[in-house]
Amino acid sequence: MEKEIVIFGHKNPDTDSICSSIVMADLENKLGNHCIPTRIGKINKETQFVLDYLKLEAPKMIDKAEDRQEVILVDHNEATQSIDNIENAKIVKVIDHHTMNFKAPYQLYYRTEPVGCTATVLYKLYKENNIEMTREIAILCLSAIISDTLLFKSPTCTEDDVKVANALQKIANIDMQEYGLEMLKAGTDLGDFSEEELVNLDAKAFEKGDTKFVIAQVNTVSIEDVLKRQKDLESAINSEIEKRGIQLFVFAITDILNSNSEIIALGNRTDAVEKAFDVKLENNRAFLPGVVSRKKQLLPDIDKNM
Amino acid sequence: MEKEIVIFGHKNPDTDSICSSIVMADLENKLGNHCIPTRIGKINKETQFVLDYLKLEAPKMIDKAEDRQEVILVDHNEATQSIDNIENAKIVKVIDHHTMNFKAPYQLYYRTEPVGCTATVLYKLYKENNIEMTREIAILCLSAIISDTLLFKSPTCTEDDVKVANALQKIANIDMQEYGLEMLKAGTDLGDFSEEELVNLDAKAFEKGDTKFVIAQVNTVSIEDVLKRQKDLESAINSEIEKRGIQLFVFAITDILNSNSEIIALGNRTDAVEKAFDVKLENNRAFLPGVVSRKKQLLPDIDKNM
Repeated sequence: MEKEIVIFGHKNPDTDSICSSIVMADLENKLGNHCIPTRIGKINKETQFVLDYLKLEAPKMIDKAEDRQEVILVDHNEATQSIDNIENAKIVKVIDHHTMNFKAPYQLYYRTEPVGCTATVLYKLYKENNIEMTREIAILCLSAIISDTLLFKSPTCTEDDVKVANALQKIANIDMQEYGLEMLKAGTDLGDFSEEELVNLDAKAFEKGDTKFVIAQVNTVSIEDVLKRQKDLESAINSEIEKRGIQLFVFAITDILNSNSEIIALGNRTDAVEKAFDVKLENNRAFLPGVVSRKKQLLPDIDKNM
Repeated sequence: MEKEIVIFGHKNPDTDSICSSIVMADLENKLGNHCIPTRIGKINKETQFVLDYLKLEAPKMIDKAEDRQEVILVDHNEATQSIDNIENAKIVKVIDHHTMNFKAPYQLYYRTEPVGCTATVLYKLYKENNIEMTREIAILCLSAIISDTLLFKSPTCTEDDVKVANALQKIANIDMQEYGLEMLKAGTDLGDFSEEELVNLDAKAFEKGDTKFVIAQVNTVSIEDVLKRQKDLESAINSEIEKRGIQLFVFAITDILNSNSEIIALGNRTDAVEKAFDVKLENNRAFLPGVVSRKKQLLPDIDKNM
């Protein structure tokens, strides 16, 4: 039997990474290729809500690629965000929507578009290949789009994402506002996590010259609730700063209902944050009205002032 | 008026680079974007045959990108093969079929497939977007495919290329074997070129560790004819070796009718060529039966023995 192609999203998988793995496997199998969806990290609570809603098992967890294993990357392209020994694998396809930093010494299929979600691109691939989408696949795609765009409120959301979501809603036959809000809320249940887990849950590291900094983000329906743990969160952040030798750690607590964020900033380069958003940190905190996107709002301004 | 998007292929443009620029501009303009085809190098004789056949002007020659000019790359993705100050431009799309070495700190549309020619991908884009192809556009695409695959004889040619060429032949309403052979022959007229021009006409530089080497290629219908100039070609090659500080220069003379190549190899690492093809160079030359593709046949074996 032909060896199956393994599909996975990025480390610290979010709803787009998990759902797009399952969706891409469905598409490839319908096109006659032999694929299985996998994941390279824990399922978060938001994604678990989606899987439970559809009574689906989580994709199989893997921690390394076999030698010359054929793989398909979804929702990422950079080696640092991929499986640890990605250089052993043969990447046959990439479906993504991120900025690019990619090398392959062989030809492959690569498709990325400037949209808010991988699933938006996947919907187009079904269309192009005249493959009909089941209700289950439509709900997976819709969940990914709602997650990545925070119910279309994030500045990362494009016209294409909205158009595709509307088409998906018809196939899914659900009220996407109602479903989406429930799904996002499920992801904001932070009670089970230790402070150390919280600051690492969705943390991305960046470099500018010799300066290393981290921007972490959690979604919530009550910023106040999260701030009750500020002291312990700060201890966890400070130990990350020490352990990783970074100059700035920004922890963004994003209110998904009202589309604002409160940030906690620590390290010896908090001046970059103050300049970036023209604020004065008080008690290490600042409120950033209208800010919900790390990629489009937090990162560019902080990076510029580093 | 909205500023137009500039489209171009690689340096030392071949028929695929020129034709795909014109075709992509046609497609984008039909999709409502405002694009012009350009080129970043001289038109070769094979491509001139195509333009003459269709009574088309060559795309406008450009030598640098304006600051933040929006551009579309076809038939290449690596900065070294692109316009000199590509880092000034904003790349909005890439349509390609090569190995990848690409970075962009912003989102874009990127589409590459493991096929023999960019025009094969472009044909699919017309299909996907339900845009009808004119006869002229079909002949441009067909010319590009015939050029890149040496009339389907190169090992770089895939099933997709053949399928698309057959579909294009119907729209073009020409005998592609007859047309293709005439076009390829037009490209083999080397009479006008000095030896220095010949060794640089289609020369690609590679690096392996600290070793730099060049593989150049010319197509011909008579290897013998080209070898009449061996002495002067060797002088030209030796001066390139000195000027560029390279360890190996392989000049492949490819017989497009019989699908063989004779190579001239000079430099202090010709041992890599001898090992690669299990031959002994005589008078600096070796005959390589069945070898026509730099990418799939010459480069991998030479690289492995470097």
